[in-house]
Amino acid sequence: VLPDGRIWDGLSALRKDNTGYDLKQLFLGAEGTLGVITAAVCKLFPAPITRETALCAVTELAAACRLLGMVRRSLGDCVVSFEFLARPALELVLANISDTRDPFVAAHPAYVLLELTGGHAARGLREELMAVYADAEAQGLVGDALIAESESQRSAWWRLREQIPAAERAAGGSIKHDVSVALADLPTLAQRAGAAVVSRHPGVRVSMYGHVGDGNLHFNVLAPVGADPETFRAAHAASVSDLVHRTAVELGGSFSAEHGVGQLKRDLLRVTESPIALDLMREIKAAVDPKDLMNPGKVL
Amino acid sequence: VLPDGRIWDGLSALRKDNTGYDLKQLFLGAEGTLGVITAAVCKLFPAPITRETALCAVTELAAACRLLGMVRRSLGDCVVSFEFLARPALELVLANISDTRDPFVAAHPAYVLLELTGGHAARGLREELMAVYADAEAQGLVGDALIAESESQRSAWWRLREQIPAAERAAGGSIKHDVSVALADLPTLAQRAGAAVVSRHPGVRVSMYGHVGDGNLHFNVLAPVGADPETFRAAHAASVSDLVHRTAVELGGSFSAEHGVGQLKRDLLRVTESPIALDLMREIKAAVDPKDLMNPGKVL
Repeated sequence: VLPDGRIWDGLSALRKDNTGYDLKQLFLGAEGTLGVITAAVCKLFPAPITRETALCAVTELAAACRLLGMVRRSLGDCVVSFEFLARPALELVLANISDTRDPFVAAHPAYVLLELTGGHAARGLREELMAVYADAEAQGLVGDALIAESESQRSAWWRLREQIPAAERAAGGSIKHDVSVALADLPTLAQRAGAAVVSRHPGVRVSMYGHVGDGNLHFNVLAPVGADPETFRAAHAASVSDLVHRTAVELGGSFSAEHGVGQLKRDLLRVTESPIALDLMREIKAAVDPKDLMNPGKVL
Repeated sequence: VLPDGRIWDGLSALRKDNTGYDLKQLFLGAEGTLGVITAAVCKLFPAPITRETALCAVTELAAACRLLGMVRRSLGDCVVSFEFLARPALELVLANISDTRDPFVAAHPAYVLLELTGGHAARGLREELMAVYADAEAQGLVGDALIAESESQRSAWWRLREQIPAAERAAGGSIKHDVSVALADLPTLAQRAGAAVVSRHPGVRVSMYGHVGDGNLHFNVLAPVGADPETFRAAHAASVSDLVHRTAVELGGSFSAEHGVGQLKRDLLRVTESPIALDLMREIKAAVDPKDLMNPGKVL
């Protein structure tokens, strides 16, 4: 629905269409500042016939990235989830969420929760996964690894991953960041942002997890043990976020991989985005919504 | 490069970035009317380790579409090519291109040239393909089928597909169309467009081939046998194209799946695109290129 009330029907199920500007892409991610999206066409995929879920202990984020390369090379698009959890994020869950336990006997520096799905052709999914694991172990990338033997085991592992935000809240809350870089730069991002934050704010704890395949990290910072979380955040959130966002942008990355700009990050967009891109965005906004009626004050 | 000479650096290797409008998507497919694209970031995929190429005789386009569904369900994204050729297109190649021969002994109504690639996990690619073929044969969708046993056999089959445009030229030329619809509507498009064209212009020959997985058909129309191709085209190209394009647009499809609008199809865009979408495109064009310097007279 456009600012003047007219309805543009952009519903199309075409995979290929080279006729004029791709208006749909302009409205996607514009956060309602150009118009309101009221309907969507969904692309469906065949329901997977086979599935394997594995939890791998890895030595560090760089090892997880290399493991992703190996498993993609071998299993291609059968890899549907590849979630990274650093040990501190897991510990937050174990300490703050009921009915959780460490799936491994020993503590490991980090973990990958990996899910593969396939059609009939994936009957050898588990065998391939085992072969990749053997390669990765020989290269010293992985420690122990488990393959889910039941749906309840699978759910328990996913719960460890999905309860991280709740665990952070239960621990007093965190300064949250949603950053992305090119996959190859992900370990550098984690290392540099971690070093910068810890050096400026000694004792802080970093809860790090994310979607490695997308180059996307949730890099959340908790107050030092013993400090009052709320007081710490009020005093240092701006400084901590500036360090994390600056590191991502310096690596050619994004300060908002998933969650958008809104009003909270509007000033950040102004200082990190190129002036030329901002001009283009403002020109388009003025052309489509000259009276600034749509979601005013957001994004730009 | 923008109309005022400024250079916007939109090179980014991020898979996820939700910061402001997606300007890159605006320039893609704008045919240079908003600016000139001078560089691109490429996403790389692992080189396939295994490959299988098959040529399947099918009863009709609808059977090819169902076969695509079956092979996608079983082999997912291992399916990298799925090219449809109707018999008349193959016959044009056999008659007009040297060193070509029909791979089958019998004549079949249509063919699918199918290619699968995979990593290590695809070691069973051929076995899976055979299983899908057995299913498809039991359902009466496929006639004979061949799996390439050598690179030279594979090349010979791809040559049959790739030489269709040259064969049409050698046969005197064709009235070409590059239409797309949602995959489910592809058989209806072919049937309706064929009936409309043959009913208005008895004796014309249709050379039909395309990328079924994209819902994209090259629906090319040749003069009746005995008629002078050039005279026929001069007299009837507009009428033939109108029938084909109208059929595609009535089915919610595109009159230009791959090749854009340019100046040849500018008037067609004006009558088939919604006035609201055209207004939006013109507003954006005026905002980004107010002096109409970039590729004037094209697209809009």
